[in-house]
Amino acid sequence: MIRFYNGLTLEPGGVTENEVWVDGSAISYVGPAREDVPAFTRQIDLGGDLLMPGFKDAHTHSGMTFLRSAADDLPLQEWLEKQVFPREAKLTPESLTAFVKVAFLEYLANGITACFDMYFFPDQFVQVAMDWGFRAVMCESLTAGDDPSRVYERYEKYNAVSPLVGYRLGFHAEYTNGIETFKTVAEAAHHFKAPVWCHNSETVSEVRDCVARHGMTPTKLFDSLGLYDYGGGGYHCIYMTDEDLDIFARRGLTAVLNACSNGKLASGTFRLREAVEKGVNLAVGTDGPASNNALDMFREMYLINIMAKLREGNAAAGDPALILNAAVSGGARAMGLADCDAIAPGKQADLVRVDMHRPNMRPVNNVVKNLVYSGDPSNVRLTMIAGRVLYEDGQFYVGEDPEKVYRTAEEYTRQILG
Amino acid sequence: MIRFYNGLTLEPGGVTENEVWVDGSAISYVGPAREDVPAFTRQIDLGGDLLMPGFKDAHTHSGMTFLRSAADDLPLQEWLEKQVFPREAKLTPESLTAFVKVAFLEYLANGITACFDMYFFPDQFVQVAMDWGFRAVMCESLTAGDDPSRVYERYEKYNAVSPLVGYRLGFHAEYTNGIETFKTVAEAAHHFKAPVWCHNSETVSEVRDCVARHGMTPTKLFDSLGLYDYGGGGYHCIYMTDEDLDIFARRGLTAVLNACSNGKLASGTFRLREAVEKGVNLAVGTDGPASNNALDMFREMYLINIMAKLREGNAAAGDPALILNAAVSGGARAMGLADCDAIAPGKQADLVRVDMHRPNMRPVNNVVKNLVYSGDPSNVRLTMIAGRVLYEDGQFYVGEDPEKVYRTAEEYTRQILG
Repeated sequence: MIRFYNGLTLEPGGVTENEVWVDGSAISYVGPAREDVPAFTRQIDLGGDLLMPGFKDAHTHSGMTFLRSAADDLPLQEWLEKQVFPREAKLTPESLTAFVKVAFLEYLANGITACFDMYFFPDQFVQVAMDWGFRAVMCESLTAGDDPSRVYERYEKYNAVSPLVGYRLGFHAEYTNGIETFKTVAEAAHHFKAPVWCHNSETVSEVRDCVARHGMTPTKLFDSLGLYDYGGGGYHCIYMTDEDLDIFARRGLTAVLNACSNGKLASGTFRLREAVEKGVNLAVGTDGPASNNALDMFREMYLINIMAKLREGNAAAGDPALILNAAVSGGARAMGLADCDAIAPGKQADLVRVDMHRPNMRPVNNVVKNLVYSGDPSNVRLTMIAGRVLYEDGQFYVGEDPEKVYRTAEEYTRQILG
Repeated sequence: MIRFYNGLTLEPGGVTENEVWVDGSAISYVGPAREDVPAFTRQIDLGGDLLMPGFKDAHTHSGMTFLRSAADDLPLQEWLEKQVFPREAKLTPESLTAFVKVAFLEYLANGITACFDMYFFPDQFVQVAMDWGFRAVMCESLTAGDDPSRVYERYEKYNAVSPLVGYRLGFHAEYTNGIETFKTVAEAAHHFKAPVWCHNSETVSEVRDCVARHGMTPTKLFDSLGLYDYGGGGYHCIYMTDEDLDIFARRGLTAVLNACSNGKLASGTFRLREAVEKGVNLAVGTDGPASNNALDMFREMYLINIMAKLREGNAAAGDPALILNAAVSGGARAMGLADCDAIAPGKQADLVRVDMHRPNMRPVNNVVKNLVYSGDPSNVRLTMIAGRVLYEDGQFYVGEDPEKVYRTAEEYTRQILG
């Protein structure tokens, strides 16, 4: 058992000074200090630091680390067609493994305890997660040319492989798939009573072209096909109509916000005020490292609030507490990780220690606003997943030397990029 | 003498693998490894890390740390009039000293080696800079009620007090001063042949009201009064007309960009494309911690580029190399620190070691883009000012215990905020 004490705790009801005990992979006690302490294997004196549930990166493409800083500052179509697609075609199971490991190191260093990933080579991706003890949920990435019926086998296989791994139904996007794929996935959603996810309304042209093709927006199209009958949601969700947001609210779907990527690709900004007014569930993701380029949820939370203020022309717009909740608990619920969403007894011990002794956290006028408006990855002192410390004070405990991970990733990157 | 070796060096010509030697406060050698090495007091093996000139925070209000996370998410006027001004009225020399120290710790932890500060109690501010070895340039903060003739005495006094300290002519803004103040400062500018600085065109209403009062924009007004005859520039510069930008370009003035503050206060976004096309000098600042809320130049550089892309609706907009240069060298030149702008022999040793072994810097496809698009304060391993290491691996070497600094600042914060 591990004991965290003498610090602050971010709980659903607010910031407290409770202790947190971890037994195996789960939280066993949250409350005031007690006399009847069991024999702990480790007692961690927080020294005033904050213990919070880990960030959930609710939309990412982990394997894209090889394209970080390799394809920036280009128009979107040129970026995709000349820089991304031809290079992704050169990926192998071995290079994908190397690139995913770099991303997992970055998640851990940045206090991210789970990711919702959409990319290639699921066997290799799952293997890294299991080998390292990282929590990862995959979203099916079907595009044109893929056999959509593969979702049945994958759903059974990857949802049974490890408690750390999950698989959700989905497809890349409307514009990369035909109607038959949507119908197959909708059938699978009904078969498994499972939610469905995809990129949705990321750009103006995506929505315009969908309306031209199908006579309705992506959200209306998906809803009309029964894809959302068991929930799910969309990534980006920039160009949502009022009706789209109503569908999301009525169906209990989640909009995953990717402010940094939407900014870097000049896609646009999310309709935060309208979505909140309508009661749409929110989560936060980084998108892949080729379009961000960091896997940093502090920066995402900051930018979501900044963009809301600029979009509304109102410094009072945005909501740091709501966005922090989306980045932590909203993501967990979106990914089907309802037992990873909070610090409470019985929940999985996916925890982050936030250094409150760095100057950017001082004075402590408001812990939540400090996290959202001045926090950064340098504040992450410890990252624990399922009760295991995988990162602490700059060191990784994943069973592999990070320098070897970097070297291997550099070699494969040079092979692909030249 | 101190030797940095076995790493990368960000020089004016690009990234090299040169060594850097520091003798006293200055750089004595930049070049390949040599046989004739002198007796170094310390040899720092960079292990592949990057040595770069420190960031220059070219617009800030250091003493405002006490308002961090205390007054967010409010409309601009309510924020200023209800949250900021009444609380600033309670500042004392002692509390100002405590709050400045928190900011200086944050600068050091974030790789900032000099700040261009506008705030109260210059004697106390200068004392902290001298005691700690931090490089600080003050900008005169005249507002209504101040005697503008004080600039003569201050100019002589603070420009002579220490090689680490400077003082530049200026005033708060057009809307907080009358024409007599501008005339007095213009006379002083001619007397000292010195540049003049102030907040300029931060909001729509500021420009509109100035035009109503004086029949011209702030920039035209200042220029017409001779305030810019010896250079200088403006902070924010959001609502600049083409003619304003032309004046800046023709006079060699510098626009200091404050993207995070302008976003958080919903002020707007800088006309980066137009300013670059016209050849306006650029620098980067954080603004104060009450309106940002971090003192983090990585986030500023990121946001400037993101805002340019969104503003233009073009993912190819922005220019990471240009903005990095503005954040390092542009700021130095703006602040009158021409000997702190680059890694070159004879320049001041204001240096930062950037950790290239954190996953957010891998792979190394492009060092500059890594810094701007995925770098964050966790990458700062060492900060040196005038040849002295003031921060290294999480520890501060300023002659004071940071915990004591935090405690004192918390106490004064509680006294003011309750």
